[in-house]
Amino acid sequence: MAIVDLHNITVTPLKKLLSDKGGVLHGLKSKDKEFVDFGEAYFSIINYKATKAWKMHKLMTLNLIVPYGLIKFVFFDGEMNFREEIIGYEKYARLTVPPLVWFGFYGLFEPHSILLNIADIAHDQDEIELKKISDIKYSWD
Amino acid sequence: MAIVDLHNITVTPLKKLLSDKGGVLHGLKSKDKEFVDFGEAYFSIINYKATKAWKMHKLMTLNLIVPYGLIKFVFFDGEMNFREEIIGYEKYARLTVPPLVWFGFYGLFEPHSILLNIADIAHDQDEIELKKISDIKYSWD
Repeated sequence: MAIVDLHNITVTPLKKLLSDKGGVLHGLKSKDKEFVDFGEAYFSIINYKATKAWKMHKLMTLNLIVPYGLIKFVFFDGEMNFREEIIGYEKYARLTVPPLVWFGFYGLFEPHSILLNIADIAHDQDEIELKKISDIKYSWD
Repeated sequence: MAIVDLHNITVTPLKKLLSDKGGVLHGLKSKDKEFVDFGEAYFSIINYKATKAWKMHKLMTLNLIVPYGLIKFVFFDGEMNFREEIIGYEKYARLTVPPLVWFGFYGLFEPHSILLNIADIAHDQDEIELKKISDIKYSWD
């Protein structure tokens, strides 16, 4: 039996309110049902055609938002199932990822994309597991 | 006597950990001394040479981070004092702005800059006051 059910990853479309000066892009509110707690918010930058994989958080719930660029996420349940989601400025949504999901991501935008993670706990190396990209068979092309 | 002391706005330099795949940019942790509470996180986009001014939050504390581009912020105490701060990817820091400060901002990066606000309360039109740009005399050039 698989460790996690990838259906528990939620995709929430978010509003972009654009104007002649720029705009406002929604992110996350404490009243949103996907919100667990606030531990840390940080950005990851992923260069075009770069891959960061694989990582699994034992405790952290991630809220992933891409306000610049486009990123492909690949989720793996630890057994046999994969799920792919692409989010970015032109496909603006929030991914909420529960603990125990293996994931990697791939930059689809030149020169780079920017990812915000609003996490319920702060970064802690002890709750992270890493695998080499070759340890989980997936065709990134 | 001025309504607020602009010295209470804090500038906290943040780490950028860059790699060949991209990098990680620090944001805000719940244990940081500038953290009050989590109410909402949202992005503002400001086009190059566009100005958004003036706004004052009666209740909200703002944590402002610019992971893309460069933005000039102007703060006004409501009486006679101004304070200017420029932050962005190349001058990477967090501005923490207490309630009752009037502020505006100006886009210094082409084609636009991206601002993240991690606020202690959610957006609420009732706690915001607005003035026209011409209501507060400041030379934006």
